[in-house]
Amino acid sequence: MTCKFFEMIDKRWAAGARVCVGLDPDWEKVPERYRSQGTYSALVNFNYARVDETHHVALAYKPNLGFYLAKGVAGLSALVDTCGFIRSIAPDVPVILDGKFNDIGNTAKGYARFAFEECKADAVTVNPYLGGEACTPFIDYADKGVIVLCRTSNKGAGEFQDLQTFKTGEPWSNARPYYQVVADRVANSWNDNGNCALVVGATYPAELGEVRRIVGDMSILVPGIGTQGGDIDQMVHYGLNSKGSGIIPNSGSAVIFADNPERALIGTTASIQRAIEQRKTT
Amino acid sequence: MTCKFFEMIDKRWAAGARVCVGLDPDWEKVPERYRSQGTYSALVNFNYARVDETHHVALAYKPNLGFYLAKGVAGLSALVDTCGFIRSIAPDVPVILDGKFNDIGNTAKGYARFAFEECKADAVTVNPYLGGEACTPFIDYADKGVIVLCRTSNKGAGEFQDLQTFKTGEPWSNARPYYQVVADRVANSWNDNGNCALVVGATYPAELGEVRRIVGDMSILVPGIGTQGGDIDQMVHYGLNSKGSGIIPNSGSAVIFADNPERALIGTTASIQRAIEQRKTT
Repeated sequence: MTCKFFEMIDKRWAAGARVCVGLDPDWEKVPERYRSQGTYSALVNFNYARVDETHHVALAYKPNLGFYLAKGVAGLSALVDTCGFIRSIAPDVPVILDGKFNDIGNTAKGYARFAFEECKADAVTVNPYLGGEACTPFIDYADKGVIVLCRTSNKGAGEFQDLQTFKTGEPWSNARPYYQVVADRVANSWNDNGNCALVVGATYPAELGEVRRIVGDMSILVPGIGTQGGDIDQMVHYGLNSKGSGIIPNSGSAVIFADNPERALIGTTASIQRAIEQRKTT
Repeated sequence: MTCKFFEMIDKRWAAGARVCVGLDPDWEKVPERYRSQGTYSALVNFNYARVDETHHVALAYKPNLGFYLAKGVAGLSALVDTCGFIRSIAPDVPVILDGKFNDIGNTAKGYARFAFEECKADAVTVNPYLGGEACTPFIDYADKGVIVLCRTSNKGAGEFQDLQTFKTGEPWSNARPYYQVVADRVANSWNDNGNCALVVGATYPAELGEVRRIVGDMSILVPGIGTQGGDIDQMVHYGLNSKGSGIIPNSGSAVIFADNPERALIGTTASIQRAIEQRKTT
């Protein structure tokens, strides 16, 4: 049984959508014609316009909680309403709430409630540091996607994620990078509901290949192909699964702050599709 | 130079305060006489009453973002206003916003802005998975405390935090548990501003001792002494620094949902003080 989030992704992929749009309205970059409307109106009107222009092409939308909390209560209100707007005009396009949630027991339940009931998101991102037990309140929502940070796209990602690791009592020669242990645990221990996925930045294509090798056909959210400079050909080469899909490439500011967001999104979609076709023929 | 957050903690400690109060108004546990007032009023009036009863004894307050987001926009509004209420009636008691934040670049800046400018918190908790570079936007607020998850209090904490780790190229015989590497990095690489601290659960006293050994006199936030069952004597034995302080013990629901929160807080404070005195004499 496929969870509803992945069913939605599969349908959008089959319809030719290739790019998740990061709805990250960084206040400093929001045009003045929106900002002059005040916080809440600026954020929702900016987002509504971007969703209006792009929803026929978008694979998913991924608002990042940080950009909304940055603007306080009005910002959070804009986030909740943006999620509602997407559902109303594009009910087939899933919403991934990028909150990188991590907490224990009832607190984790609180975050899950926020994501899945207040925002009615179809998937969330979570941080694995506290272990699978702490992620259970998210995973228990079997119809929702739970996308676990594995290898993040930032420059300093390797400080911990690249450490060689092994279990006490195991031979040290079993050691492998920490992010690969996370990939293995999520794919092989956490995923009884079939609703888990991983995050691996396009800025680390070799690591993306390692993760793909470990997790089989599991979906991988791949941020970093836009402004962060991740290479699309490499992402496709290392990231696609055995079915020629299984990646959720994300582009944020390169789409939403483009002069023509629809054209920017169609352009990136075409680049990814071209890379997929070239890979098939080689 | 001591950052303002630690100055505040030191003064409260010198005044006899020993317990940080976790302001975690888990909706299911909030008494009906509050809940019947509606979400926002229930949360602020419940919190205001608890702060009113306890602020003369509290070492700090630690609201956890998850319990507020669980109640959506009204919940977030209650969080922001609770932080303001604490500042107005107890300006000497620091507020630790427990958000376990973790993200990159401008997103991390957004979370820092929320914590330090919207909520005007004196400290935050952050998750180390993305590395020190990603925590820079928090650490750059040199007057604010940045409290990094190290060994969390939950049952499944060891899944990753106990993995033996070493750097590629180093001899494997240097391997030590991941949480100890985090402690070492935070104490010796991230802390140029002197504003970092760590989180180690009271439910893992031996690990608390290991962290204390690694970080010298650095402050450690210790959740888990209340409902989670962490032992106070062990926490004091393993957690105190060379000055006989350096711990920020946190108790949440055991205080705020007590029949008499003031008495509960004074009782826990006395237990900790007794343990400190016994340790001195042995």
